[in-house]
Amino acid sequence: MTIKYGLEFPKDGTCKDERSETNKYRINLPQVVDQLIKSCSNENCFEHINTDPLPSRQRAADIIECCRNILFPGYFNGHGMDQVSFSYQLGVAVSKLYDKLAAEITYSIRHECIRYNQSCLHCDEQGKKKAFEFMLSLTDLRHILATDVKAAYEGDPAVTSYDEVIFCYPGIQAITIYRIAHLLYDLEVPILPRIMTEYAHSQTGIDIHPGAHIGESFFIDHGTGVVIGQTTTIGKRVKLYQGVTLGALAFKRDEAGKLDRKSKRHPTLEDDVTVYAGSTILGGDTEIGGRSIIGGNTWLTSSIPADTKVLLNPPELIMKKKEVKGE
Amino acid sequence: MTIKYGLEFPKDGTCKDERSETNKYRINLPQVVDQLIKSCSNENCFEHINTDPLPSRQRAADIIECCRNILFPGYFNGHGMDQVSFSYQLGVAVSKLYDKLAAEITYSIRHECIRYNQSCLHCDEQGKKKAFEFMLSLTDLRHILATDVKAAYEGDPAVTSYDEVIFCYPGIQAITIYRIAHLLYDLEVPILPRIMTEYAHSQTGIDIHPGAHIGESFFIDHGTGVVIGQTTTIGKRVKLYQGVTLGALAFKRDEAGKLDRKSKRHPTLEDDVTVYAGSTILGGDTEIGGRSIIGGNTWLTSSIPADTKVLLNPPELIMKKKEVKGE
Amino acid sequence: MTIKYGLEFPKDGTCKDERSETNKYRINLPQVVDQLIKSCSNENCFEHINTDPLPSRQRAADIIECCRNILFPGYFNGHGMDQVSFSYQLGVAVSKLYDKLAAEITYSIRHECIRYNQSCLHCDEQGKKKAFEFMLSLTDLRHILATDVKAAYEGDPAVTSYDEVIFCYPGIQAITIYRIAHLLYDLEVPILPRIMTEYAHSQTGIDIHPGAHIGESFFIDHGTGVVIGQTTTIGKRVKLYQGVTLGALAFKRDEAGKLDRKSKRHPTLEDDVTVYAGSTILGGDTEIGGRSIIGGNTWLTSSIPADTKVLLNPPELIMKKKEVKGE
Repeated sequence: MTIKYGLEFPKDGTCKDERSETNKYRINLPQVVDQLIKSCSNENCFEHINTDPLPSRQRAADIIECCRNILFPGYFNGHGMDQVSFSYQLGVAVSKLYDKLAAEITYSIRHECIRYNQSCLHCDEQGKKKAFEFMLSLTDLRHILATDVKAAYEGDPAVTSYDEVIFCYPGIQAITIYRIAHLLYDLEVPILPRIMTEYAHSQTGIDIHPGAHIGESFFIDHGTGVVIGQTTTIGKRVKLYQGVTLGALAFKRDEAGKLDRKSKRHPTLEDDVTVYAGSTILGGDTEIGGRSIIGGNTWLTSSIPADTKVLLNPPELIMKKKEVKGE
Repeated sequence: MTIKYGLEFPKDGTCKDERSETNKYRINLPQVVDQLIKSCSNENCFEHINTDPLPSRQRAADIIECCRNILFPGYFNGHGMDQVSFSYQLGVAVSKLYDKLAAEITYSIRHECIRYNQSCLHCDEQGKKKAFEFMLSLTDLRHILATDVKAAYEGDPAVTSYDEVIFCYPGIQAITIYRIAHLLYDLEVPILPRIMTEYAHSQTGIDIHPGAHIGESFFIDHGTGVVIGQTTTIGKRVKLYQGVTLGALAFKRDEAGKLDRKSKRHPTLEDDVTVYAGSTILGGDTEIGGRSIIGGNTWLTSSIPADTKVLLNPPELIMKKKEVKGE
Repeated sequence: MTIKYGLEFPKDGTCKDERSETNKYRINLPQVVDQLIKSCSNENCFEHINTDPLPSRQRAADIIECCRNILFPGYFNGHGMDQVSFSYQLGVAVSKLYDKLAAEITYSIRHECIRYNQSCLHCDEQGKKKAFEFMLSLTDLRHILATDVKAAYEGDPAVTSYDEVIFCYPGIQAITIYRIAHLLYDLEVPILPRIMTEYAHSQTGIDIHPGAHIGESFFIDHGTGVVIGQTTTIGKRVKLYQGVTLGALAFKRDEAGKLDRKSKRHPTLEDDVTVYAGSTILGGDTEIGGRSIIGGNTWLTSSIPADTKVLLNPPELIMKKKEVKGE
């Protein structure tokens, strides 16, 4: 088999195969449909048949976009924004966000309500109430995100301006979405916060559970592979690099063998801690004291006092002269 | 250079630069075009000039969406689905999927056929036949994916419901796409399966080659950085965490120095194995025995017996008191 | 709480909640808007109010698509391309790319100009000039990318054809975008190159700073988690695997405590170096000599001579027989 590419490629190029006229496969599709429908009355398959709309990843991404346009006005609309119409545009953006968010929170609550046969959760009222509470926090969100942007500028010599951070940095994108999702998580909105942070994970490779608590001036550089678990606590001015895991040790199970889904399983990082690339810190009782620096590739399952530098004593390297053709 | 942002920004803001009227660059574009066309008769560039459509990543993603709507009915359409019209909607979805898949398989086969000057592969007939065989497997696919969803619920204390797994978990997204692609790979469809798993890789950071063999109840948590090579074999109820590589040792080459593209190069994991974050298991002869647990950050190039717990003796840490201003 | 799914789901499914009629939250939105507008006259928030369009990630992605259609003609349009109309289509593609690129470069320069109160940078003229210079390099770009495609085919036993590399490989996608962005970076276009490489990062998990210097026949396999810093120098025929970091040691600061943003902070890899998965090489003075092989999971902060194989002496493993129910 010789591989041909470029203009040596056969000039006429069209396929000599007679297009198959027969429909012999297609006419048998109803048997596939029947089989699939039968599999739906089976405990061992999942389906979600209900006339009420479900929360949707696409709409969650849309809500995030609306938030970003309000949190960082003028940055992400792709065209200019003038001083005069700015306040009108903001007014429109705010009411649009409120409507979308109220609807999506309602869907999320109603989904739980019906799915688990709970008594009425007053989803519509709750959706509006929680959406409004979220709106009231937008200004605070702007302030804390500004500290994150400044932390990125201070922390990375490759960055040339605040605008570059806001435009380009996946860390800022992930932190923005985490902070939005965390607000909703605190308001006890089901499902939607997780959909949002998994959207961020997909865009950036940074996986922050919306339940984590993270202080101001938080900086994640590069970020791919970062995992921050649900019960993690992070203080102010903390810096993380790519591939850092703040995770759980082996999970506790109760007497019945069920997972313990409530206890603190993930570590605590106090103010001004830095964790370099590829390090793993595990366990709910693990506390990293203030201002400590955790070197790259470290594996920690116990606490570290404040003002400590932890370095890996790097494993011995074996160097040998390469033999010619000796791979 | 002072950085200004916020309302201190110049009020009128428009650029004083006279818009350049000249066309002095644009009129020279034909020389760029000529140069590019000349580079096409050159062995050292790639192009693909042919009137038959090529397989496309966009359409592959579309086929995956169609599959997901059939495999998990009602979850991903973003609006409700009622009991009455469900079976009609499923019927429409099935015939749409069949048509799209038959066309794309045909393109993939025809591409190989023309590209490598093979004798006629009867691409159109093959496309319909293989697409129909795929359709017949959809119910089994639903069953095995249900075991994967349950494994995620059982394996992660942070998850609150099966629906959350299906909506949010990148592991389930990657496994769903892998299982679709693996079916097509087994049907010897060229190119399309790889396009699908690389789409999953891009969405989730999880890179599973469609050739790998993976048993039921498979769970990947977080997942970013997971790599599962082409000749990997994975048993039932296996759990992997982020950053796990199941890879190859240095590649064998034949006498002519060509890569050996056929032999088993990737490891085997038996039933009920767990591999924690950041571990690397390499080599086609490496077998991890049933129920064994491989701790985080481990590096393995030889076999492990069944019922074994392998832990890294963590490299020594050096701790020193941080000097003030001593970074 | 019993979890119900499948057809046991309540048949009528609709929510019993009276839809809330009240507007009691929505009428209070103006207070949210006022609060947000007030926060805009605050130093501690970011906004970007200006009538001139900003560079945009969406348009950057669009420019990358245009480039790919010119660099790999026929591969990515999803339908066929015939020999006759090929040159006309290329002509249209070239002039479209020029116009879009000139506009986006102009926006990027004007943004800097206004943002930092610089004297007029003649953004419109510069945009056209730099875009045209970029166009003149497209043929060279095709040649060097062809070496990258061939390197992937030579380097990976799982690949079956050049076309598979071009269609599927995230490494080729990331390298293509890096080479485009690097050209613009060399032309001193602000912001846009970073937006482009962060787009690649988001798609592939591979984070290459546009400032890095990378020779021909460059191959990245799998790629998730790869980080290549701004002042990295990479020779010809270099291979990297997933999770490799070519990064900086702790940053230098000047007397005033400001970050040194100019010096070489990232390593140099000479010709024919291979770095296996998960390895980290740090520091501007670190040089890896030609033809050397760096084994997986290695951590290097000093130079390695040419023709050397560096292997991790793997940390001791502790194996213990698993107790029954002993996790």
